[in-house]
Amino acid sequence: MPLIALLPGDGIGPEVVEEARRVLAALDLGLTFEEGLVGGAAYAAEGHPLPPATLALAERADAVLFGAVGDPAFDNLDRALRPEQAVLGLRKQLGLFANLRPARLFPGLEDASALRPEVAGTIDLVIVRELTGDVYFGEKGTRTTSAGLRQGFDVMAYDEEEVRRIARVGFETARGRSGRLCSVDKANVLETSQLWRDVVVAVAADYPDVALTHMYVDNAAMQLVRAPGQFDVIVTGNLFGDILSDQASMCAGSIGMLPSAALNGTGKGMFEPIHGSAPDIAGQGKANPCAAILSAAMLLRHSLGQDAAADRVEAAVAAALTGGARTADLGGATTTREMGEAVLAAL
Amino acid sequence: MPLIALLPGDGIGPEVVEEARRVLAALDLGLTFEEGLVGGAAYAAEGHPLPPATLALAERADAVLFGAVGDPAFDNLDRALRPEQAVLGLRKQLGLFANLRPARLFPGLEDASALRPEVAGTIDLVIVRELTGDVYFGEKGTRTTSAGLRQGFDVMAYDEEEVRRIARVGFETARGRSGRLCSVDKANVLETSQLWRDVVVAVAADYPDVALTHMYVDNAAMQLVRAPGQFDVIVTGNLFGDILSDQASMCAGSIGMLPSAALNGTGKGMFEPIHGSAPDIAGQGKANPCAAILSAAMLLRHSLGQDAAADRVEAAVAAALTGGARTADLGGATTTREMGEAVLAAL
Ligand SMILES: CC(C)[C@H](C(=O)O)[C@@H](O)C(=O)O
Ligand SMILES: CC(C)[C@H](C(=O)O)[C@@H](O)C(=O)O
Repeated sequence: MPLIALLPGDGIGPEVVEEARRVLAALDLGLTFEEGLVGGAAYAAEGHPLPPATLALAERADAVLFGAVGDPAFDNLDRALRPEQAVLGLRKQLGLFANLRPARLFPGLEDASALRPEVAGTIDLVIVRELTGDVYFGEKGTRTTSAGLRQGFDVMAYDEEEVRRIARVGFETARGRSGRLCSVDKANVLETSQLWRDVVVAVAADYPDVALTHMYVDNAAMQLVRAPGQFDVIVTGNLFGDILSDQASMCAGSIGMLPSAALNGTGKGMFEPIHGSAPDIAGQGKANPCAAILSAAMLLRHSLGQDAAADRVEAAVAAALTGGARTADLGGATTTREMGEAVLAAL
Repeated sequence: MPLIALLPGDGIGPEVVEEARRVLAALDLGLTFEEGLVGGAAYAAEGHPLPPATLALAERADAVLFGAVGDPAFDNLDRALRPEQAVLGLRKQLGLFANLRPARLFPGLEDASALRPEVAGTIDLVIVRELTGDVYFGEKGTRTTSAGLRQGFDVMAYDEEEVRRIARVGFETARGRSGRLCSVDKANVLETSQLWRDVVVAVAADYPDVALTHMYVDNAAMQLVRAPGQFDVIVTGNLFGDILSDQASMCAGSIGMLPSAALNGTGKGMFEPIHGSAPDIAGQGKANPCAAILSAAMLLRHSLGQDAAADRVEAAVAAALTGGARTADLGGATTTREMGEAVLAAL
């Protein structure tokens, strides 16, 4: 009986994870669920955003379904105690180096995109983001310069093995799709990016069937607005992936639609909506649970090998939308629970 | 007689700078022009992208009008010899820490934007980008890890004085516009950003008339697509400013329309289109010279105190567009020279 760790987090996390749990339970796959406190909710109860019991649960589980963290009510805490540290800590502790962030526009949502329908309609891409390195996890701190000034610093770095393993995920993902991979870096300025590019080019020799291109991150941010249809799979570092995936989400209508998977190569994974905890609408039944439900579908596919069940969940979300269900972010008045019901009904 | 250093660079640089020069000359302000080699053109002629004579000219001049560099034909050179090093070197040598990047949609260009007209039409913002610090100019290189792996690294850093002076430019710019300033950082992850945010908040005390907000860079990238009209002035670091300004440019129709100013607080400045050198269309008369011409307008305003002349140039560009001139990037067939002529005719 596969064990799923449910880590709802703070803000809208609990509401959307509950709908995803109901969908998973309805599939009759014999899953067991165990809940853990994380983020602001954990800090409020236990004084730490990632309590040892939560980390142990995540380590024991076959997969983690994560909601959202980041309530700014905790922004004045020491960085180490803020809600976001929970998600960073889980990624690092579980070695989840490969983050898959698909972005596509579901049929019928063309009107929700800020892009023209003919531009938005061409979006169907996956961003493969490295998740345990880069400037996120290098040495960082505050020091005093020789001029006596306070200086903040963060070391950006990648070693060849870190790049190699994420590059392989990028190439494999491209191989399973259209066979096109775009590696995004800033090699005209950064040594980290130059090493990144050299290693990606070397790995490409093992994937003669994949067409590799390179793009600078500033150009990529522009092209994702101008002509997103040109991209199939993008592989990039932690920081650039953070920025580009949020941006791509908006091309796709709403960030409330987009799931993600964080994998470590063993089948174990953490699955979460890419949206934040949106404390302004928490507890009001306004949140869109689709990103959480689609994250559950990715969990079925990547951690449990349940491809058919994953397809079923994704088809049910599409059907619910085709049926007219629209939460507030999509311009409608469907509640979180009603959207969950619509998906359940379409399963 | 003010001296303008013309540094056309490579690719389409020379074509677009020539149109901007003709516009400046037509204003009868008694300007003198002197040309210098830079970027790929300088490397080809003298073996270095920023020859000493060019740097000396830029230092001697009252202002620099820069075209574009970055021909990938030089990508296999050592980083220190690549065309981009010229622009980075000039910024650093001249101390040009403040980069102003306005983005607005010129009337009539609604159709050229990938955004819906009602979204694109609301864009009128300035990105104030720090230009001589951040991960661009920190210690960088390649080293071997304790595991014997090659590692690339770049140190991201800002000291309090660097943040203070760019924050002031941000607040002053906001004061001269709508009085709203959004500071973009990644303070939930980066110590550099936390220091940035602390200093910006401290500087805000001197600007009680400006409303300051903070946004994480991933969210900003999303909001710039979703609802760009919410922004007036954005102040941010070198790397985030690079990404966001390219992105904003596309919301505004075409990167071929967008000028920039790099200033050091003495009146001296370097003015350049934010587009690259586009070697694929170089020499074909297809490039849009508007970004270069509008950069010349910024030169008149910021380095020469010629506000009326600057307004005249900007109005002439608007008139040329209203008159129907459209280069290829705007979906038309007007040539570079014809676009220059249309602006001259409207002066
Ligand atoms: C909450 C934050 C630390 C996180 C990140 O930057 O990775 C988030 O933006 C994300 O993309 O998952
Ligand atoms: C050419 C490159 C080094 C430069 C930068 O990254 O600053 C460019 O992208 C820009 O924005 O002016």
